[in-house]
Amino acid sequence: MTEASKNPPWRDAIEQSIEKNKELKYSKYVQLVPLSRSVFIWWLHHQGSSKRWNKEKATVRPDGRPANRTVVSRGFVDGTDQLQFTADSRSEKMGDVAHQPWGEICWYFEDTWEQFRLLGLVGVIGCDEEDFRKQEARLKAWQAASPKSLRQFVDPPPGRPRAPKEEFEGDPPNQEEGPVETFCLVTLEPKEVDYYSLKEKRRKLYKLGEEGEWSEEEVNP
Amino acid sequence: MTEASKNPPWRDAIEQSIEKNKELKYSKYVQLVPLSRSVFIWWLHHQGSSKRWNKEKATVRPDGRPANRTVVSRGFVDGTDQLQFTADSRSEKMGDVAHQPWGEICWYFEDTWEQFRLLGLVGVIGCDEEDFRKQEARLKAWQAASPKSLRQFVDPPPGRPRAPKEEFEGDPPNQEEGPVETFCLVTLEPKEVDYYSLKEKRRKLYKLGEEGEWSEEEVNP
Repeated sequence: MTEASKNPPWRDAIEQSIEKNKELKYSKYVQLVPLSRSVFIWWLHHQGSSKRWNKEKATVRPDGRPANRTVVSRGFVDGTDQLQFTADSRSEKMGDVAHQPWGEICWYFEDTWEQFRLLGLVGVIGCDEEDFRKQEARLKAWQAASPKSLRQFVDPPPGRPRAPKEEFEGDPPNQEEGPVETFCLVTLEPKEVDYYSLKEKRRKLYKLGEEGEWSEEEVNP
Repeated sequence: MTEASKNPPWRDAIEQSIEKNKELKYSKYVQLVPLSRSVFIWWLHHQGSSKRWNKEKATVRPDGRPANRTVVSRGFVDGTDQLQFTADSRSEKMGDVAHQPWGEICWYFEDTWEQFRLLGLVGVIGCDEEDFRKQEARLKAWQAASPKSLRQFVDPPPGRPRAPKEEFEGDPPNQEEGPVETFCLVTLEPKEVDYYSLKEKRRKLYKLGEEGEWSEEEVNP
């Protein structure tokens, strides 16, 4: 590998967009579609008057419908090109994410009119993670979080019938004691990146090849 | 039906959020996940040491992976609770949308820290639409668009290898002559709405019942 190939080509573009849009508090809010399990699908292919069954592998949410949600980008996992987010192990989001499913991030930068769509493999690092480096990334994310934002991890379970107001009050967990059990780190390892500049009317597709090299193609926006 | 049931309960909430966030130019940008075809999926259910095959109906993108994109909300189709967006018939987005698939909109309002997730049926109204009322909605959307934004519908085909710069220049189509062939209206008819207020730590789930009535449940955020 040459020196230049260390950073995938889309990484510089996204770092620039983050830098240019840093004054915007909400440029960190991105949309994530996690899909939950690998399944085989059979579908009836119609061609003229003939029909045949096709088979494909796909990933879907437990109820077979899409799930789109806003998450807060926490940048990249140190030393990798994986995007990172935090999540509560008790949330539906976690039910939607299994081992190595596909997910897609849609990140729109308002100031510069740029959109990145990052398609890749989603991973979850929870309290029972045995990989030391992954557990370290989870600990770093815990330490980097604002103390106030940690309160949600000890709030009553998300999605369950509304608990009394008092149960949402009180101190957040002690940050120095390390992550609480419900605190998870979610990662997305991009395999395809679709970059779109509305202002410049330009669009680029980046794809990771089988041998780990990124290709780049300029297409019509 | 009583007078009160004419507007679904989430509609007032979203109208208020639109009103409160109207100063924000980008509060119109929402994320859409269109999924493309109905398929049956079979999946292996593991329970302890036993396994069994389950069958479900699902909708997926042609390649079986999710597709998340930013679209600009154009409000609601007159006299309905369907959200509307415009799209180019030549774009991938259209390949992702078939007749009556499920789709989900994720709409985040920055000023008020509110998120709406609207899950429902997606429809496309193109130039060959025969339903007069649908064709009328498409015409209204064409007339309501800014002249400059219409230029994209006569630009070189999206997603194809980059055409010369000159082909993206020149006048937009004449708005008075009615919609060009590539101009489509995409609609989403909500069946489930998930409302989340980060500021107030409140969350409500709205679901459309089999008899057309909306139910409302308050859950933990």
